[in-house]
Amino acid sequence: MARYRLVIEYLGSAFVGWQHQENGLSVQQALEEAIFRYCGERLRTTAAGRTDSGVHALGQVAHFDLARARDAHQIQQALNFHLRPLPVAVLSVAPVGDDFNARFDAVRRHYRYRIVNRAAPLTVDRGLAWHVAQPLDAGAMHEAARELLGRHDFTTFRASRCQARSPVKTLDGLAVSRHGDEIIVEAEARSFLHHQVRSMVGTLSLVGRGKWTAADVAAALAARDRKALGFNAPPEGLYLLRVDYP
Amino acid sequence: MARYRLVIEYLGSAFVGWQHQENGLSVQQALEEAIFRYCGERLRTTAAGRTDSGVHALGQVAHFDLARARDAHQIQQALNFHLRPLPVAVLSVAPVGDDFNARFDAVRRHYRYRIVNRAAPLTVDRGLAWHVAQPLDAGAMHEAARELLGRHDFTTFRASRCQARSPVKTLDGLAVSRHGDEIIVEAEARSFLHHQVRSMVGTLSLVGRGKWTAADVAAALAARDRKALGFNAPPEGLYLLRVDYP
Repeated sequence: MARYRLVIEYLGSAFVGWQHQENGLSVQQALEEAIFRYCGERLRTTAAGRTDSGVHALGQVAHFDLARARDAHQIQQALNFHLRPLPVAVLSVAPVGDDFNARFDAVRRHYRYRIVNRAAPLTVDRGLAWHVAQPLDAGAMHEAARELLGRHDFTTFRASRCQARSPVKTLDGLAVSRHGDEIIVEAEARSFLHHQVRSMVGTLSLVGRGKWTAADVAAALAARDRKALGFNAPPEGLYLLRVDYP
Repeated sequence: MARYRLVIEYLGSAFVGWQHQENGLSVQQALEEAIFRYCGERLRTTAAGRTDSGVHALGQVAHFDLARARDAHQIQQALNFHLRPLPVAVLSVAPVGDDFNARFDAVRRHYRYRIVNRAAPLTVDRGLAWHVAQPLDAGAMHEAARELLGRHDFTTFRASRCQARSPVKTLDGLAVSRHGDEIIVEAEARSFLHHQVRSMVGTLSLVGRGKWTAADVAAALAARDRKALGFNAPPEGLYLLRVDYP
């Protein structure tokens, strides 16, 4: 048996998310079918982040086992060949030890959320960012984001169908910055709850519009109640950027 | 009569280019139909850059005349409403004097060309950049680009159907830089010949691959012969970024 670690990029709107679903093509299924076409093996891949339908990845990490060792570059070339024309690409392949686990060994996950904040609708960025027409105060969003940093019970920012055993997570980074018309939210943590980043971004956008204060964000967090949430930002702005391992 | 200046953004792949064509929808036609739906006037718009089919714009500038003055913000909102769902957006509208001409008054046009240089195919950037799988030396491309700066007869880098009266142009800027997997070429001049930017980028890519030297680029320019050209880079990497006026 030979285990490999892959870095994967994909356009979220083309898939029902990372994980296998009854209702459409997942990235996982596309990848596993490409592996089958390459080497005839039916196997399961494991990823660091089970991204939702519509969520993009620039640096998703996954692992899988082949019956025997093969050349890593050849694997990459072959998988990219068999994945065409789907908008998913294997950026790199590396052999790893049998004890490596893309999901459980990850020590930090980095997400980026893109907002285009302007009156005019999107053209080249359509499907690649959240369009918010009302003016947002990125500085106020950044200040309010500080209320969420650190170790908390994030029940407020958790999807009802979240499968995590505990709602307690440590948020290591949540920074909001403006670059012209674009507002970027960068989030990092060892792990996130289901919908946590989109929930935090949606709530911060209410601060950006002047409807909520930083104190309202703190109170929503303290409520530990999904009903205290602002709302979920849409998936098309979210990117799984990078996953760190020891 | 009231003249207006518009800044326009569009996804090039959805159109046959800026200018009216028999074979499909142009940005100009889309815009003129939106104007007609807004105010019932059939009129002609004039743009700073007649971008080709597939070429994107982040800051195209155009002007047109209405029979009577209207609120600029209202014009923007109405045109964006009537342009939906096409991937073209009016970023701003401003009243200008009757002597303003978007095409002839432009003192500088800024183009950006995006290359994604990696083995893996494109996903989120598909249609938004040129994918080059072979490694490119961006430093060598930047050095070779210097051969093209200044006032020259650019016949070598001119499309056969170019309508410019003279092939002599002054290239004020042509810079190549690498940012991770991405190579950016920034070009600026008062005006460009038809296909000039794509011709220059295609030729520089030969330098990046080690097939041509900077001296070969200088010789191709000096040849003043379309047959001396490397080749045209594809349209999907090219963006009309900005147009400057006095």
